[in-house]
Amino acid sequence: MSDLYWPGDDRAGEHFGQEAFVRALVDVEEDWLARLGHPADLQALVQSRDLEVLAREAERGGNPVIGLVDRLRDGLTGEPASWLHRGLTSQDVVDSALVRMAERAAGDLRADLAALGADLTALAQAHRDTPMVARTLTQHAVPTTFGLRVAQWLAALVDADEQLSGLSFPDQVGGAAGTRAAMVELGVEVDLEPLPWHTVRAPVTRLGDALVTTTDALARIANDVLVMSRPEIGELSEGRPGGSSTMPGKANPVLSVLVRRAALTTPQLAATLHVGAASQVDDRADGGWHAEWATVRDLVRRTLTAASQSVELVAGLQVHAERMAATLAAAGASVRAEQRAMTDLTGRVPLPSYDGQAGAIVDAVVLRAQRHWRSA
Amino acid sequence: MSDLYWPGDDRAGEHFGQEAFVRALVDVEEDWLARLGHPADLQALVQSRDLEVLAREAERGGNPVIGLVDRLRDGLTGEPASWLHRGLTSQDVVDSALVRMAERAAGDLRADLAALGADLTALAQAHRDTPMVARTLTQHAVPTTFGLRVAQWLAALVDADEQLSGLSFPDQVGGAAGTRAAMVELGVEVDLEPLPWHTVRAPVTRLGDALVTTTDALARIANDVLVMSRPEIGELSEGRPGGSSTMPGKANPVLSVLVRRAALTTPQLAATLHVGAASQVDDRADGGWHAEWATVRDLVRRTLTAASQSVELVAGLQVHAERMAATLAAAGASVRAEQRAMTDLTGRVPLPSYDGQAGAIVDAVVLRAQRHWRSA
Amino acid sequence: MSDLYWPGDDRAGEHFGQEAFVRALVDVEEDWLARLGHPADLQALVQSRDLEVLAREAERGGNPVIGLVDRLRDGLTGEPASWLHRGLTSQDVVDSALVRMAERAAGDLRADLAALGADLTALAQAHRDTPMVARTLTQHAVPTTFGLRVAQWLAALVDADEQLSGLSFPDQVGGAAGTRAAMVELGVEVDLEPLPWHTVRAPVTRLGDALVTTTDALARIANDVLVMSRPEIGELSEGRPGGSSTMPGKANPVLSVLVRRAALTTPQLAATLHVGAASQVDDRADGGWHAEWATVRDLVRRTLTAASQSVELVAGLQVHAERMAATLAAAGASVRAEQRAMTDLTGRVPLPSYDGQAGAIVDAVVLRAQRHWRSA
Amino acid sequence: MSDLYWPGDDRAGEHFGQEAFVRALVDVEEDWLARLGHPADLQALVQSRDLEVLAREAERGGNPVIGLVDRLRDGLTGEPASWLHRGLTSQDVVDSALVRMAERAAGDLRADLAALGADLTALAQAHRDTPMVARTLTQHAVPTTFGLRVAQWLAALVDADEQLSGLSFPDQVGGAAGTRAAMVELGVEVDLEPLPWHTVRAPVTRLGDALVTTTDALARIANDVLVMSRPEIGELSEGRPGGSSTMPGKANPVLSVLVRRAALTTPQLAATLHVGAASQVDDRADGGWHAEWATVRDLVRRTLTAASQSVELVAGLQVHAERMAATLAAAGASVRAEQRAMTDLTGRVPLPSYDGQAGAIVDAVVLRAQRHWRSA
Repeated sequence: MSDLYWPGDDRAGEHFGQEAFVRALVDVEEDWLARLGHPADLQALVQSRDLEVLAREAERGGNPVIGLVDRLRDGLTGEPASWLHRGLTSQDVVDSALVRMAERAAGDLRADLAALGADLTALAQAHRDTPMVARTLTQHAVPTTFGLRVAQWLAALVDADEQLSGLSFPDQVGGAAGTRAAMVELGVEVDLEPLPWHTVRAPVTRLGDALVTTTDALARIANDVLVMSRPEIGELSEGRPGGSSTMPGKANPVLSVLVRRAALTTPQLAATLHVGAASQVDDRADGGWHAEWATVRDLVRRTLTAASQSVELVAGLQVHAERMAATLAAAGASVRAEQRAMTDLTGRVPLPSYDGQAGAIVDAVVLRAQRHWRSA
Repeated sequence: MSDLYWPGDDRAGEHFGQEAFVRALVDVEEDWLARLGHPADLQALVQSRDLEVLAREAERGGNPVIGLVDRLRDGLTGEPASWLHRGLTSQDVVDSALVRMAERAAGDLRADLAALGADLTALAQAHRDTPMVARTLTQHAVPTTFGLRVAQWLAALVDADEQLSGLSFPDQVGGAAGTRAAMVELGVEVDLEPLPWHTVRAPVTRLGDALVTTTDALARIANDVLVMSRPEIGELSEGRPGGSSTMPGKANPVLSVLVRRAALTTPQLAATLHVGAASQVDDRADGGWHAEWATVRDLVRRTLTAASQSVELVAGLQVHAERMAATLAAAGASVRAEQRAMTDLTGRVPLPSYDGQAGAIVDAVVLRAQRHWRSA
Repeated sequence: MSDLYWPGDDRAGEHFGQEAFVRALVDVEEDWLARLGHPADLQALVQSRDLEVLAREAERGGNPVIGLVDRLRDGLTGEPASWLHRGLTSQDVVDSALVRMAERAAGDLRADLAALGADLTALAQAHRDTPMVARTLTQHAVPTTFGLRVAQWLAALVDADEQLSGLSFPDQVGGAAGTRAAMVELGVEVDLEPLPWHTVRAPVTRLGDALVTTTDALARIANDVLVMSRPEIGELSEGRPGGSSTMPGKANPVLSVLVRRAALTTPQLAATLHVGAASQVDDRADGGWHAEWATVRDLVRRTLTAASQSVELVAGLQVHAERMAATLAAAGASVRAEQRAMTDLTGRVPLPSYDGQAGAIVDAVVLRAQRHWRSA
Repeated sequence: MSDLYWPGDDRAGEHFGQEAFVRALVDVEEDWLARLGHPADLQALVQSRDLEVLAREAERGGNPVIGLVDRLRDGLTGEPASWLHRGLTSQDVVDSALVRMAERAAGDLRADLAALGADLTALAQAHRDTPMVARTLTQHAVPTTFGLRVAQWLAALVDADEQLSGLSFPDQVGGAAGTRAAMVELGVEVDLEPLPWHTVRAPVTRLGDALVTTTDALARIANDVLVMSRPEIGELSEGRPGGSSTMPGKANPVLSVLVRRAALTTPQLAATLHVGAASQVDDRADGGWHAEWATVRDLVRRTLTAASQSVELVAGLQVHAERMAATLAAAGASVRAEQRAMTDLTGRVPLPSYDGQAGAIVDAVVLRAQRHWRSA
């Protein structure tokens, strides 16, 4: 599975694909059937070739479950056929399937972020004392180190992964309208927890918010690579830049471009999940719920893709420390203007270097990152 | 092609599908090759089975054109092989392909809107004088007619179709950086118009804005059906409601739900196109451009789907005029309170009906709609 | 302070007002000056009448700090004049001021949410067993209780407050470019924590995400009141509805309308904070940072206003239990259709009531809420 | 009026201020009273000191009209007191007031855009043949001219102004629920046009879309200035850059930063107007309408501010043509790589310059701009 409209999409693998969705829906039904005491192997009853029909049928009931249950029931006999889906409602099955897919995707995403975090840690440490000029509002400011810049990337990444680590992925088991009346009628023992959340969508919006926080952090890196790999700056370059269809020799920072692309789209997708949540009403919403499925899918796949691209980007990143040093030297006295203002005030001799706590901040961020991933 | 995450998506047919994209890209190259004087049949050189590879390769250059041109060139010999793509850049090919696909989709969309407009016109006329209670801020207000309500739906639709009718779909022919230097070097005669718009994205944002204006208008209808088909109100019902996976006999206004769903997501997609436009820089943007492709695709397909669903919704709509009349009657004196305030002021005898210009407004909206589509 | 364009805005009091901003900025400078060992009373140096000038001057440097520091320095003499702002940069002062204002606002917001939570708890308990019909996709589904509905409102509120409770409000102390070089040069002892976050904006986006989660939860209530106070349904009504400018006797659910209004706007504001975060670059961003200030202000004030309105809404809510019962009774056999399907399967005698675990779920949500606020 | 949270806001003057809103509301009532044949001077009846009370009272009815009408009526006697507001509803007054304010603001905005267009035209012509290197995906591409770059800015501006020029600003005259029943009852002659648009919000969303298209175009300029004024590039600089609170001699491209800031926020505001439009229902929406007022206000003021800042930015822009030439020269053979590929193909001698139709495109864009503003 990949997507010509979203280069790199295949990095997201099968997560939230069409088949993965059906498989997850069937899993939910299968688990429930087992819980009802009538286990059956349901996965075998749905084939890839059924996908198209299931997708087309999904419109009739507004979601893919009704058609799927019909199909499964057709393939069963006896008790499993009678008991299939009893006590559940379509939203139970769709929500549980989405959440299970999301949990798996978040696992893979966090593995990529951990790898990225390790690479950034090494990079920050390697360049802890590599001098470069700081830039604020696009202009040269004061001396800094490339290590401190990388530490900012790392800090943003830890923030994002902390949000991801706090997510919960509750199954949905509410029945027709969240009362579990049919389950009680059937005599099924159902634990109270997790409580039904048919119209309480924080599990979904929190996921969206954590994903967009992740692409924010990844774009933080990409934006810097895009600026610093401009030929006039030349302090960084991608390890394996992309070419042009017409200009031989062109070396484009393609991974950074594609990561930045993702981050321009995900804030609005997360907002859509909130608009959906803010449209919740009654015991099942009339559109606010349905707006979530494709939105979560796109958010997840784009974040997975951007994370994977970022791992490759950072692993291959070329750091041109000599160019950093040369730019800083060329900036000359102007980047020491603040220091002069301070020594004018104190009357002291200027310190030889003017990078303050840069090294200590790098160390602290690295320590925080290490603790975060060690405990993860 | 259809999508389990977006029930009804198959209504959008092949528009902006993977194959359609490749076909459009190849079309652009084919047209250009002919213009260079070396025509060749390129469509035969790319098969469905190549899609996956093309999509995967697209990441290397940041867009699908580089890999596609390689593939096409491999399949050609002689002059066509040498001249393929000469003078163009990938953005020329991608932008032109997207615009051509958009033009075709807009054509199909407008056909559906015209059909919907005709149905709404007939409905407004049929119920020009069907009394019902107006509702403002959810509460009973004064008498109105169902025809006037439908006229509001129709007016919104005409507004949307006017925006669609004003769109332009310019090919992109700029060369490597919008100067057309390679074309001049090759001696190709290139008309100035359309001027290159590599970094001037109004053709894209205007498309997005028109599409979201369309889903706004369609949701206007769906929202009313959702309210008015509540059993306590019962003034409308869908012709072919959806069922439930667990509650026999349930009749859900599924088409309305799915139309409303679309309209909750498209505003954010159109905003993404503007975020992309606002990120334009240099002679080709570093992410703002790439964010457009999937976003336009989703906007187009969701609008096509919602329009098609709305046609079916309105065609099958059940109008319960007797229920409207009963509700109005039951509202009693309260909906005449304003009228009494007016006659207290004038001292005149109250007019027997209190629907003002409702009928005349219906006629005027219908006339506007008829003129609009006649001239279209 | 209040706003004709946002009725109810005065409920947000002085939070994030113009004066509050200046006061917070001055506070930050005052604290820093004391830390430098040269304390001075700075608040007296800026008057309300200076606001307009400060605001106008803010454009020259891109933020209000440069003009403010000039003004403060003009009012000082001796050491405080010399040491004012030394070691800081404008972003330190702006970020710290915003965060401090946000912390105070979050405190007031959470107090309102706690009050609302207490009222919802009492309401859920009072109506734990009040029967009503559940509605899914706008249609009658199965029996439920009004207590369970309220429990859903409460669950969403607890989710939101949990997100708010997890926020952190770190001061910003980074100096010109986050290295703290001037501080070190001045010999100021600066704790490493909190680490500078000039370009790491999770403290801001997390705030935005928590606020929009809050308005999502409040809209959840408002949407139900809007539906259920429709005259045809009549199960709820606002305690003090609003009137009309022309229709005597009209009773509009105004508080619900205004809460819903807020929730339609906040998702996009939170998205703007993420777009800003995704635009971070260098050591101070060229616009992404500046886009935050008014956005956070609007998010905070709208959420405070919506929370206060919701407290009033719930406190005054009229519950028409007899109407709920009547509607359920009128729904008749159709809401027992699922139950019949279950008993057809089991062959058992139908349970007299068909509300499953509704009461137990209410109890569990209430318990969770009580624990949450007890530990808060 | 100005805003510490939005430096530069005072450039928007009194547009959409609190007083302007009241004045516009009173204007609408005054015009209507005259139309009813009972003219009175209403403006004198509301003072600045009433604003705060009016704003506070606005919550009771959900909008500021009810309180305002009470106040006006208290100040009148005789026929004007009796006839004030008769036939109208609050939405008529609010919508008409907003539209009138918007029309005035659009007039001022378009005057600024015309001035900006004239400056860009002169700049494009002055630098029609000023060579510089084109940049695509941040990397050097082929030779271009600065004039062509400016022509892209100009083209985007013309696109935006065309959208603004197509806006309409219809008064709202619908009465309680859009039927004009009270007007008919009162015997007022009301032209059919403009038809009531209480729930048909294209006049509002089109305004929003045109405004965001404008900030897209302005950001197009600002983004380039931000990149090209980086010290390593140094091809442009702002005429009157901003300073730093701590670094003497710092020269920040502040106007560009603030324009870019605006453009990061407006797409989401325009999206909010569409979310509101997509939430229209009944004969007056329960929140979707109310969400518009502050959103339109912010959109208008931010666009006015950004336009005014852009005029100043472009008027003062320093163009460093020698630096452009030096960078192009330094890029050397690499920016002629495409040309070599073309001459390899044709076997011809390379043309001395390689800027293709750059000059002709500049001329064509300039011509289009001149025609646009001449006809405007």
